[in-house]
Amino acid sequence: MNERYDIAIIGTGVAGLSAALNAKIRNKKFIIFGGEEVSNKLVKAHKINNYLGLYGKSGTELKNEFMSHLQSMDIQITKEKINNVYPMGDYYALMANDKMYEATSIILATGVNFGKPFKGEDELLGKGVGYCATCDAPLYKNKVVTIIAYNKHEEDEANFISTIASKVYYIPMYKEEVEVDSSIEIVNDLPIEILGDKVVEKLILKNREIITDGIFILRESISPEQLVPGLRIEDRHVEVDRLMKTNLKGCFAAGDIVGTPYQYIKAAGEGNIAALSAVAYIDELRRKKN
Amino acid sequence: MNERYDIAIIGTGVAGLSAALNAKIRNKKFIIFGGEEVSNKLVKAHKINNYLGLYGKSGTELKNEFMSHLQSMDIQITKEKINNVYPMGDYYALMANDKMYEATSIILATGVNFGKPFKGEDELLGKGVGYCATCDAPLYKNKVVTIIAYNKHEEDEANFISTIASKVYYIPMYKEEVEVDSSIEIVNDLPIEILGDKVVEKLILKNREIITDGIFILRESISPEQLVPGLRIEDRHVEVDRLMKTNLKGCFAAGDIVGTPYQYIKAAGEGNIAALSAVAYIDELRRKKN
Ligand SMILES: Cc1cc2nc3c(=O)[nH]c(=O)nc-3n(C[C@H](O)[C@H](O)[C@H](O)COP(=O)(O)OP(=O)(O)OC[C@H]3O[C@@H](n4cnc5c(N)ncnc54)[C@H](O)[C@@H]3O)c2cc1C
Ligand SMILES: Cc1cc2nc3c(=O)[nH]c(=O)nc-3n(C[C@H](O)[C@H](O)[C@H](O)COP(=O)(O)OP(=O)(O)OC[C@H]3O[C@@H](n4cnc5c(N)ncnc54)[C@H](O)[C@@H]3O)c2cc1C
Repeated sequence: MNERYDIAIIGTGVAGLSAALNAKIRNKKFIIFGGEEVSNKLVKAHKINNYLGLYGKSGTELKNEFMSHLQSMDIQITKEKINNVYPMGDYYALMANDKMYEATSIILATGVNFGKPFKGEDELLGKGVGYCATCDAPLYKNKVVTIIAYNKHEEDEANFISTIASKVYYIPMYKEEVEVDSSIEIVNDLPIEILGDKVVEKLILKNREIITDGIFILRESISPEQLVPGLRIEDRHVEVDRLMKTNLKGCFAAGDIVGTPYQYIKAAGEGNIAALSAVAYIDELRRKKN
Repeated sequence: MNERYDIAIIGTGVAGLSAALNAKIRNKKFIIFGGEEVSNKLVKAHKINNYLGLYGKSGTELKNEFMSHLQSMDIQITKEKINNVYPMGDYYALMANDKMYEATSIILATGVNFGKPFKGEDELLGKGVGYCATCDAPLYKNKVVTIIAYNKHEEDEANFISTIASKVYYIPMYKEEVEVDSSIEIVNDLPIEILGDKVVEKLILKNREIITDGIFILRESISPEQLVPGLRIEDRHVEVDRLMKTNLKGCFAAGDIVGTPYQYIKAAGEGNIAALSAVAYIDELRRKKN
């Protein structure tokens, strides 16, 4: 049987980190998922003047303050990207590449890096378009797979799928040098549209076309409605009330993902509220059981 | 003519200070009103672990970090208590003891120190019950005035009114030693109920009664509905939407005053949102004028 967490926090931006502090203080069994660099958005900022108490720090300095705060409280980040979250009634199942986690409540703090979908992407989602290559790999045995990758660490995904697929095209959307298996064809071009009648047939790029059976779009973040089926979205953001509750029981959200203004301390404040709401939810469930 | 500010922030807790940073960054003409000690609630906390980036600080240490942030950005606090705010159509009039300020928009960040009203207080408000002794002093020439004071600095109010009234009773609700003019009678007792038919007649205390014409209740904070007439209250807190807008045009609120959880970083996050909403409101007004 899988270990069951009280709270799973998805995202290690300011919202997720602030939520983690409060889950810890309240003695809940929790896990926090995120990336190596904590948050790209955090690190990118030049100089931040509006985070009360920390004046004139760069994004990296701020990140270091946050990490040392977490260390002091003995909080570890689980370096894992969550690809899907399934509401299972009284708990949630969280799918990382090849692992599954379980939690009674979840806090979505994945930011707004998901960008606009490509033309045809929404229509062909699940019909050849996917967001997790390793998860769907078995479907593409001896088939042609195209990967649109927004982060260098997706190269592992490409290498893995190249051992299964007959052919892999790799389209890097990042600036770093690409280092993938020599069997993989690197395509330095801009995707425009995904075409297909019932299933994916080809990808139109600015300067060429690729005939392909599957297309994996590996963005920094997955849009919230793709991440958690059934989640109510309003104006491209997760709908929440003032206590950061979404429409799904036990599912809370905080930070950029719930709406503007996009600001650090707003995200931190909301992470705090979301964690306390999750704590109240867990405590209430326990009271009912007893 | 009075100087007209774009934004007036009332309160120097975490919510008000965070709002001030953003008003400054956005180049608005603003003023922030508060107390000597910034916020009692801030200073009282022993050790704070859930303000992301500042681990294990005492309330006083946190306060010092905040003050040095404000100093770095050249933000000054106007040490003044606002007793009433009147919506004047396209601006607000803010009444301090003997001064008036004007602002196009206001941010209420006064916390929740206002406590429960005494029995009879609400009914006799404006009929002998008041919250600002200096404001109403002329009404009590040669009359008997009772002051219920929650803070040592109200002793000045008592001294002032004793030059006008025929008799002043002073009921200190704080622990520090009382130092008032010798003409003032200090009553160390607990107020229970205010009585009077059409106007205030007497104050019932636990161990005695006082016959009096006026009673001033000088609490740390004034309840928001007393501070701003017409403000919509929900469940004892100021009703706001997710952008911190109240029901009154140009009036925003942030921090404990808008609801639980009572937490520093939540208050700071809301102060940030409220300031940006006030900035948007001001900019929109300017666009319409041009
Ligand atoms: C250049 C720049 C400068 C800025 N300057 C300022 C400023 O001066 N002041 C200010 O207040 N704001 C500023 N901002 C805005 C600020 O960065 C954001 O408001 C803030 O980062 C939002 O925090 P968040 O936690 O909601 O999301 P993010 O910081 O975006 O963090 C989301 C996290 O979730 C992770 N994640 C996403 N999906 C998954 C998944 N499926 N599984 C696991 N992890 C996942 C991501 O890797 C990331 O770590 C700036 C932004 C930028 C880009
Ligand atoms: C002992 C203690 C420990 C705490 N520990 C923690 C903790 O560990 N972590 C945490 O997150 N939270 C903690 N809190 C809660 C935290 O203090 C509050 O949530 C926070 O102070 C709210 O900030 P605020 O800006 O909304 O209001 P406040 O801090 O209450 O500030 C309101 C300000 O407005 C001023 N004011 C009021 N009326 C007027 C007026 N009419 N004119 C001018 N100025 C006015 C007041 O003087 C005050 O400065 C603690 C609280 C206490 C009492």
